[in-house]
Amino acid sequence: MNYISEYKKKTRASAKIFAKSSKLHVNGVSHNIRFYEPYPFVVKSSTGKNLIDVDNNKYTDYWMGHWSLILGHGPKKVKESLKKQIEKSWMYGTVNEQTIKLSELISKAVPVAEKIRYVTSGTEATMYAVRLARSVTGRKIIAKIDGGWHGYTSDLLKSVNWPFTESESSGVVSEEKIISIPYNDLEGSLKILKKYAKNLAGVIVEPVLGGGGCIPATLEYLKGIQEFIHKNKSLFILDEIVTGFRFRYGCLYPTMKLDPDIVTLGKIVGGGMAIGVMCGKKEIMKYADTTGRKKSERSYVGGGTFSANPASMTAGYATLSYLKSKKTNYSKINSLGEFTRKEMSKAFDGKVAVTGKGSLFMTHFLKDGITEITNSAQVAKCDSVMLAKYHFKMIAHDGIFFLPGKLGAISEAHSKEDIKKMIVASQNF
Amino acid sequence: MNYISEYKKKTRASAKIFAKSSKLHVNGVSHNIRFYEPYPFVVKSSTGKNLIDVDNNKYTDYWMGHWSLILGHGPKKVKESLKKQIEKSWMYGTVNEQTIKLSELISKAVPVAEKIRYVTSGTEATMYAVRLARSVTGRKIIAKIDGGWHGYTSDLLKSVNWPFTESESSGVVSEEKIISIPYNDLEGSLKILKKYAKNLAGVIVEPVLGGGGCIPATLEYLKGIQEFIHKNKSLFILDEIVTGFRFRYGCLYPTMKLDPDIVTLGKIVGGGMAIGVMCGKKEIMKYADTTGRKKSERSYVGGGTFSANPASMTAGYATLSYLKSKKTNYSKINSLGEFTRKEMSKAFDGKVAVTGKGSLFMTHFLKDGITEITNSAQVAKCDSVMLAKYHFKMIAHDGIFFLPGKLGAISEAHSKEDIKKMIVASQNF
Repeated sequence: MNYISEYKKKTRASAKIFAKSSKLHVNGVSHNIRFYEPYPFVVKSSTGKNLIDVDNNKYTDYWMGHWSLILGHGPKKVKESLKKQIEKSWMYGTVNEQTIKLSELISKAVPVAEKIRYVTSGTEATMYAVRLARSVTGRKIIAKIDGGWHGYTSDLLKSVNWPFTESESSGVVSEEKIISIPYNDLEGSLKILKKYAKNLAGVIVEPVLGGGGCIPATLEYLKGIQEFIHKNKSLFILDEIVTGFRFRYGCLYPTMKLDPDIVTLGKIVGGGMAIGVMCGKKEIMKYADTTGRKKSERSYVGGGTFSANPASMTAGYATLSYLKSKKTNYSKINSLGEFTRKEMSKAFDGKVAVTGKGSLFMTHFLKDGITEITNSAQVAKCDSVMLAKYHFKMIAHDGIFFLPGKLGAISEAHSKEDIKKMIVASQNF
Repeated sequence: MNYISEYKKKTRASAKIFAKSSKLHVNGVSHNIRFYEPYPFVVKSSTGKNLIDVDNNKYTDYWMGHWSLILGHGPKKVKESLKKQIEKSWMYGTVNEQTIKLSELISKAVPVAEKIRYVTSGTEATMYAVRLARSVTGRKIIAKIDGGWHGYTSDLLKSVNWPFTESESSGVVSEEKIISIPYNDLEGSLKILKKYAKNLAGVIVEPVLGGGGCIPATLEYLKGIQEFIHKNKSLFILDEIVTGFRFRYGCLYPTMKLDPDIVTLGKIVGGGMAIGVMCGKKEIMKYADTTGRKKSERSYVGGGTFSANPASMTAGYATLSYLKSKKTNYSKINSLGEFTRKEMSKAFDGKVAVTGKGSLFMTHFLKDGITEITNSAQVAKCDSVMLAKYHFKMIAHDGIFFLPGKLGAISEAHSKEDIKKMIVASQNF
């Protein structure tokens, strides 16, 4: 059967509403990646593992709010806290207790968070992290990973998508201050870093490449990069916006015995509400303290109108409190991820590589002699058209939602039954 | 009486909690401007015109959530909508109807909003506006106003605070791509713009300088700038994040018969929830449509995880719907602003200039021969220490809150009685 017509048949109301959306919005969406052909369905509500669209179709969701909803959609405890907070208001514009409660949890769980500053989005958090590294070191060059994605900030908009040597966007002006290194290739990376050593302010890395293909960094790679950075008196910035509180209660880096200077958080720690977090060592974060500094000597590090707003702080606190009290649930969702990777590989009979870690996974249709996935260049050589088709088939036919082409996230609301259904749907692709 | 001790006496619980906050956060806050000596009070809840702190002090608030709460804190209609939405979830990560509803209102009220894209904050909105202008024109230089504040984006972090020639922050790298022009000085501005004309991508202006001193632009100035920009085939970006839906149902620019290419919105249109909006003409916004474009030819313009999230969209829609149905309320709060400016000038017996427009106002303690305020350079010469003292006295003694040194915003929750009390408090300073 033609999946496009199957999809169109069941999403008639979405089609009508999306036509309106297309008149009002660029490409009909407010995030480039949210569009897919023929048109994305329009969501009416969401609960637990499900997205429900305006035609009343129910989808088991593995996109999970850009992977931020580790407890599923609208989890009861968070919902109750949030409603209580809305009762007391959702915007103060001033210091509030909710912020302190969330920070107490984060600072205990994330050793590097000796000082915290909240901002409104991940894009803002990485922008400030980079600015701070430049302020602390007095140097200008920032290194990032080929395929690393740290949001849309102009300061890191380079080498995100293949081909990495081509600009990501017109209209950007800081590209010559960004250099890019090959993921999980220590020798290749050090060669480049050494060339720029004198002017290298810092390196920013995701410990599991997110948008770039759901690929864990090897311990050897991260340790090697860190050793070079610290010898070079540059800063080591770990972007844990995706990975923070995803695999355990806390960040991923302590399990690897890493020693970052700045860690950025987002997604899960906001419980689905807008958030970005800068965590850092005292001696680093003090540069962001503007009191008593000349303008040109301070590092001007946000917030913004919505930073530390009581709604985001409350949703984040409720989420982390829950995760803290039920730590064992991490082993459940992590092992569902293991199970997914194993069974998915089997289902496709070796034609795919399934990457990921814990509850995050991504399927790559191997092509052109690629047999394993350890970096984004390999991901780029896989069959992305096939991946999008596979995801779309599940949307159209199986009531399973992945944002086409993107990685999947398992939440506490998913069961082994759900995963098995997804495996069956994959077998039938 | 010593206002510091009066403040300390009534804010003992705040003192204790803020001490905790100082251990956890840079300077105890998540926004540089939210700190003031000896320590900011800690808010417990807010309602209508009031902030209530953890010692149960009640303050008539003129800060109003960074001026975003035009209906006051936690207005009933918005609260009810928001709670209903929270029931249906607060994060989908996909296309939703709430977005379309809000966009229908905005596009009808703001003529330039032929296409809309939502982002998460004002900082993001202006970052994208500038990127888009560079993409469309293929040029690199952006002009802003001396004292103009467009959020923390690296692309506009220059000439915000006096002295304008000194960097705003260490660690920024795009300064040479930003030029700065004197507000309300058409001849002086054109002289600079002409020098950079060939490489000028656009000019970004607030029609009422917000952070820079609450100063309306003259019609002659904006018209003159616009004329030059359009002749020069550069883009005219109006930043209406503060002014949009503040003085009337819609933007300020149509009342001035201006013809901007891009307008940024935020604050009021999110009803107190995190939002940033890019509005633009079709022929401009099409550059942000990434489908079918090469990476280096597209303009990579957000969203982000939280863009167009249903909670922000719902709060925005509820706020605008209310404003639309009660348009006459604008004349009420605008005239309260008029009254404030007039009575405040009298109260200080000519020693101050009170600037502003409609429901926004700011008191400047004149000094060094300054007799009128038409730009930020004059604001910088005023007695800012006195202004902070005056605001602090009202916090400590009168139960009236201005963020010390910042402009005030009147909301629908304020009455003439409130304003009169503030005038009396000013007389007694």
